[in-house]
Amino acid sequence: MIKEAVILGAGLGSRLKEKTVAMPKGFLELGGKAIVEWSVQKLLACGVERVIIGTGHCHEYYDELAKKYPAVKTVFNAGFASAGSMGTLAVCAPCVTADFFLLESDLIYDAAGLFVLDNESRKNVVLASGATYSGDEVYLEAPEGALRALSKNKNELRSVDGEFTGISRLTPVFLQKLCVYARDNRNTMPKLEYESAIAAVSRKAPHDFPVYVRKIENYAWREIDDAYHLQTAEQDVLPRIIENEECRSVRREVLLNPGPATTSDSVKYAQVCADICPRENEFGDVMAWICDELTLLAADKAAYETVIFGGSGTAADESMISSCVPDDGRLIVINNGSYGERLAKIASVYKLRHTVFESSAYEALDIEKLEYEFKTGRYTHLGIVYHETTTGLLNRIDQIGPLAKKYNIVTIVDAVSAYAGIPMDLEKLGIDFMASTSNKNIQGVAGIGFVICKKNELEKTGAIPMRNYYLNLYDQYAYFLKNRQTRFTPPVQTLYALRQAILETRQETVEGRYARYSECWHILVSAIKKYNLKMLVKEKDQSRLITSIMDPETPHYSFDALHDYACKSGFTIYPGKLGNINTFRIANIGAIQPSEMRRFAELLGGYLESIGWR
Amino acid sequence: MIKEAVILGAGLGSRLKEKTVAMPKGFLELGGKAIVEWSVQKLLACGVERVIIGTGHCHEYYDELAKKYPAVKTVFNAGFASAGSMGTLAVCAPCVTADFFLLESDLIYDAAGLFVLDNESRKNVVLASGATYSGDEVYLEAPEGALRALSKNKNELRSVDGEFTGISRLTPVFLQKLCVYARDNRNTMPKLEYESAIAAVSRKAPHDFPVYVRKIENYAWREIDDAYHLQTAEQDVLPRIIENEECRSVRREVLLNPGPATTSDSVKYAQVCADICPRENEFGDVMAWICDELTLLAADKAAYETVIFGGSGTAADESMISSCVPDDGRLIVINNGSYGERLAKIASVYKLRHTVFESSAYEALDIEKLEYEFKTGRYTHLGIVYHETTTGLLNRIDQIGPLAKKYNIVTIVDAVSAYAGIPMDLEKLGIDFMASTSNKNIQGVAGIGFVICKKNELEKTGAIPMRNYYLNLYDQYAYFLKNRQTRFTPPVQTLYALRQAILETRQETVEGRYARYSECWHILVSAIKKYNLKMLVKEKDQSRLITSIMDPETPHYSFDALHDYACKSGFTIYPGKLGNINTFRIANIGAIQPSEMRRFAELLGGYLESIGWR
Repeated sequence: MIKEAVILGAGLGSRLKEKTVAMPKGFLELGGKAIVEWSVQKLLACGVERVIIGTGHCHEYYDELAKKYPAVKTVFNAGFASAGSMGTLAVCAPCVTADFFLLESDLIYDAAGLFVLDNESRKNVVLASGATYSGDEVYLEAPEGALRALSKNKNELRSVDGEFTGISRLTPVFLQKLCVYARDNRNTMPKLEYESAIAAVSRKAPHDFPVYVRKIENYAWREIDDAYHLQTAEQDVLPRIIENEECRSVRREVLLNPGPATTSDSVKYAQVCADICPRENEFGDVMAWICDELTLLAADKAAYETVIFGGSGTAADESMISSCVPDDGRLIVINNGSYGERLAKIASVYKLRHTVFESSAYEALDIEKLEYEFKTGRYTHLGIVYHETTTGLLNRIDQIGPLAKKYNIVTIVDAVSAYAGIPMDLEKLGIDFMASTSNKNIQGVAGIGFVICKKNELEKTGAIPMRNYYLNLYDQYAYFLKNRQTRFTPPVQTLYALRQAILETRQETVEGRYARYSECWHILVSAIKKYNLKMLVKEKDQSRLITSIMDPETPHYSFDALHDYACKSGFTIYPGKLGNINTFRIANIGAIQPSEMRRFAELLGGYLESIGWR
Repeated sequence: MIKEAVILGAGLGSRLKEKTVAMPKGFLELGGKAIVEWSVQKLLACGVERVIIGTGHCHEYYDELAKKYPAVKTVFNAGFASAGSMGTLAVCAPCVTADFFLLESDLIYDAAGLFVLDNESRKNVVLASGATYSGDEVYLEAPEGALRALSKNKNELRSVDGEFTGISRLTPVFLQKLCVYARDNRNTMPKLEYESAIAAVSRKAPHDFPVYVRKIENYAWREIDDAYHLQTAEQDVLPRIIENEECRSVRREVLLNPGPATTSDSVKYAQVCADICPRENEFGDVMAWICDELTLLAADKAAYETVIFGGSGTAADESMISSCVPDDGRLIVINNGSYGERLAKIASVYKLRHTVFESSAYEALDIEKLEYEFKTGRYTHLGIVYHETTTGLLNRIDQIGPLAKKYNIVTIVDAVSAYAGIPMDLEKLGIDFMASTSNKNIQGVAGIGFVICKKNELEKTGAIPMRNYYLNLYDQYAYFLKNRQTRFTPPVQTLYALRQAILETRQETVEGRYARYSECWHILVSAIKKYNLKMLVKEKDQSRLITSIMDPETPHYSFDALHDYACKSGFTIYPGKLGNINTFRIANIGAIQPSEMRRFAELLGGYLESIGWR
C-alpha cells in the first residue's frame, strides 16, 4: 500500500505564456477544478496519507491548497528558476519516508493508473501509455520491461516501447540514488529533469536498481504544457477520464437509517486490496496506526489507547461492561433508551452488582437526581449512552462525566453513534472507557467495534477475572501491545476501509463533520416544521444526528408506504423504536450532503401531500 | 444486485458460414476460450447465481457447458430455426424470477458493463456505446435517455444516440410485457428480434415501461456476426478488454499461512456494492440465502441451521461452548493442539463443569482410551477440533462423532479450518454444533464466524441461561428466525463477499476443492521429501490442508529469512505454534493453484540450497 506522494510543482510553465505568468501550471482549471486539486483528490481517495508538493513559481497557490487539504505539505525549492525538476524532487526527498507515488503537477489522469501502480509487486515502476499524439511525447525505451532510456526524439532510442506519463512509484532508497546522481552531476547537468535521472540510474544499475515500465496501451491521461494540450485535454481526455471513473462508481443509496451510515466510494474500494496475513508486520503497522488515529480523534494518545474487536458496537459495549467492573464493584446504568437498556441487560447477564437509573426516553435526564444517586449509592462505575440512537436524545456527558469523576466513579460510555460526529475530548468529559463502531460517524463499513480506554484505568482491569474470552478488553489490549497482532483473526478488509474512513475524517475534521451533519439536521428540522410534523425530543436536547418524528396522525399514513416511497428515490429510512409512541427516525450521519437532505425533505413533503396531510 | 442472467444462444449464425454450421456462434473461440464461456465467467464473477441459456442450433454444446458450470441452465427453443431471438427469450421467460442481465451469446465485452448496469438505479436499461465502426451496428434513438427506436439504418431514426451492445438489464415484469407483445404480434412478426420488442414496448408505454439507455462512449465490446468481426475482435477488441480488466486486478499474494486464505478478485470486488441498511428485507434475503447455503455445504437444511455472527472463528467457538452446555451438563474437551486448548480455556472462563482429555499434538488420538472415558465419565457434551490448525493433525471425527452419539453425547466441533475444504456430512459424522469462519476454506474475507447447528439440539439451548450477550447462540438464532435480521449490525460488505465465495464454492464443489487442495498438498509433500525435510505429523494422520515441517537442523536456517525470501516472490508463510518443537507451517488452502504450490516448492528448494542444506 502506497501511503505517500510527491508532486513536482515548481516549474514556470512558460509554454502556457500569459496563463501561467502569475500562477503555477497545476492551477489551470479543467472541468471547474485546478488540475493539481484533481490529482490531490485522487491520491487521497486511493489511500495516500501525505502529499508532498515541491513548489517554486508562485508557491503561495500551493500553500493555500495545503490549508484546504491537511494531508498536503508544501516544500519550497528556492532554486526553482534555475534548476530542473530533479532539483525540486531533491528538496522534497527528506520528507519521504516510504514507497511513494511521484507525479508532475500538470497532469490529468485516470485514477486507475494509481490503482495499477499500487498493485505492482515490483518496487520502482513508471507508468507508460500507448500513443497519445499529444505533440510533446516523451518516449520510453524499455526492451524487456525495464527502463533503459527516455527521449522526446524517437531516433535517440533503439526501440519505442511507450510514452512516459509522468506518474511513477518509487522507493525511498531509489530516491536517495536519484539525489546522489543529481549531486554527482550538478556541474554538468544543472537543469537535470527527474525522469532523465530515473532513466540514468536504472540504466547504470539495472540489477540493483531496475525501474520497470508498466504500460497501459489505452490509458487516459494528458500532460498540459501548452494551449493545444489544454484544449485537447478539455475536449477529449477529461471526458474520457470522467467516463472511465464513472463506470467504477457505485450506485448511490443515501442511508438515513441510524447506521450503518452511507460511505464514500473510496472507502468501499479500500476493501479491494491484496490479500495479507494479518500477522505480518505490515498489517500490524496498519492496525497500530488505526488505533492511534481513532484515539486522536477524541483524546490524547499519551493517556488513552484504542482496543479493536471484530464485531459490532454492541460487542464493544459488552467488552467494556464485562471487563471493567470488578466483582466488588457497583455499577449504575442510566436507562433512557434501548441502548441504555442494553448496557443494563449486559450487566445482568454477567450478574454484575448494578442499579438501573431510569429516565425518560425523550426528555433530558434530571442531573440533580442523578447526583443524589451518585452521592448516596456508593457506585464505582457508571454506564451511560452518549447519544441515544433510539430517539436522538443527547445525554449531557459534559455535565455527567465530570460529576461522576467528582464521586470517583469510573465512566463507561456507549458513544457508538456520537464518536467522530460530535467533537469531544474524553479527558475533559471525564470518560474512562468509550465504545464505538466502524460504521457510524467515522463512515467506514460495518464489522469493527472499538473501545477507547484511559490507560491507567485499562491497566487496572487486568486484575479482574475473565468473564468471557473473545471480548475481554484487557487481554485484547495486552496481546496487541506485546505482539502488534490481535488475539484472533481481525476483519482485514474492513480495517483497510476503516483506515480510509479515518483519512477522510482527518481531511474533514470532526468539527467539520459536525458542521455538515448539523446543516443537514437544520434542513430536516425546517422541513418538519413546515410540514406541521412534531419531533419527539425538544430541539435543545437533540444530538442533531438522529431525529425522531411523530407519525402524522392520519389513517392514511403508513411507515411502510413512506419507506417504499423514499426507497424508490434512493433514500433508506427507519422506523421508531419506542413501544408506546409511534415515530419514525431520520438520521443525518454518514457521507451525505446537505443537497441530499434537501431532496429528501422535498420527497417527504411529496409523500405527505399524497396522503392529504399538507 | 442482479442474480440472474439470460443468454440468447439459439441462432444459426449463418453469416459465419462453415464456422458455425455444426456449432453455435457462442462457441467460437477467442483467446483460447469460447466466447460464451468468457461471458458465463464474467457473469458468475459479478455475483450472478443462475445463467439461463436459451439454446437451439447445436444445443448440445450448451448442454455440455452446463455440466461444467452448475449455475448454467439450458432451455431449448424447439422453434429456433423459424423464430427470431424473441422466441428464444420467451422460452426462457418462465425460468426468470428476478431482475436479470440479458445478453446475446456472440458478444465479447468488458465486464465493467455488467458492473455499470448492476449499479443502475433505473430498472430496465440497455447498454450502449459510442461508434464502433464494426460494419453491423444497431443504432439507438434515445433522445432523452429513454429508448425510442432501434435500427441498422441511421435514416430510420430521428437521432442516433449510440450503438446497441446486446447487453441489458430487465425486470421480470418487463419480460412479461415483451412476451405478451410477441404473442400479440405472432402473425405479423413471426421472426421478431428481442431488441425490436424492447424498443416497441418502451415506445408504446414510455411512462409505465420506460427502457433507459446507459451509454459508455468508449466501451470495449464486439458482436461477432461474420469473419471480419471475428478478426477485429481478436486483433483489436479482445486485447483492449483484457487490458481494461487487468487494470482492475489486484496484486497477487499467495497466502500459505493457515488463514485468512487467499481470495479471488471477484470475492474482493463483491465488497464494492451500494450501501444498504442491513435491516432492509433485501439484505435479510441475502443473509437467509447465505445461512442456507452454508448449511447445504455440509448438511441437510431440514435438520440443520446456520447462525452467523460478526466476529472470528474463535467467536463462533465461544458461542458454541458458552451457549450449548447447561449448568448441570458435563463437557469433555479434547486437547491435542492450540485450538483444543482454546475450547478448554473458554469452558474454564465460563466455569463450566468440564474435563480435558489430553492427547499428543502430533499423533492420532487413542480412540479406545477416549471411548473408555466416554463410558466412565458420564459426559453430556464433547468439544473437539476437526482439524488442528496448529499442526495439520486431522482428528477422526468420522469415528469420534458416531462414538459420542453412541453415548448420547452432544458434539461441539471446531471445524474452523476443515469446513468447506473437506467434504463432510454432519448428520453422518454425528455433529450437532460446528463452528467455522468466512476466511478459511470457504475463501471469503475475514469478519464472520458461524455455527451450523442441529436444529433440535439448538432449540434445547433456549433453556440455558445466557452467559454472555453478543455471542449467545440461541438468541442470535431465534431473533433472525423471527425478524430476518441479525440482533446487531452485521458486517454487510463481508457478507456480500461471503455470498460470492459461496457461489464460487458451489461452482467448484467441496469435493473439487478438496481435490485441488490435495493436489497442492501432494506437490508440497513431494518437495519436502525431495529436500530431506521432515514432517511433524505422519502423512496418514494429516488433513492435507496444513503441513507442519520440522525446521532443518542447521544453524544457517532462520524462519525469518525463509519468510522474507518467500515474501519477495509473493508467498506468505507462517511459523509453527508448538512450544517445544521447532516447526514452520505451510497451508494449502484458499484460492491458490497447484502451479503456485509448484513455484513455492522451487522457492523453498532455492532457499535451502542457499543455506547449504541440499
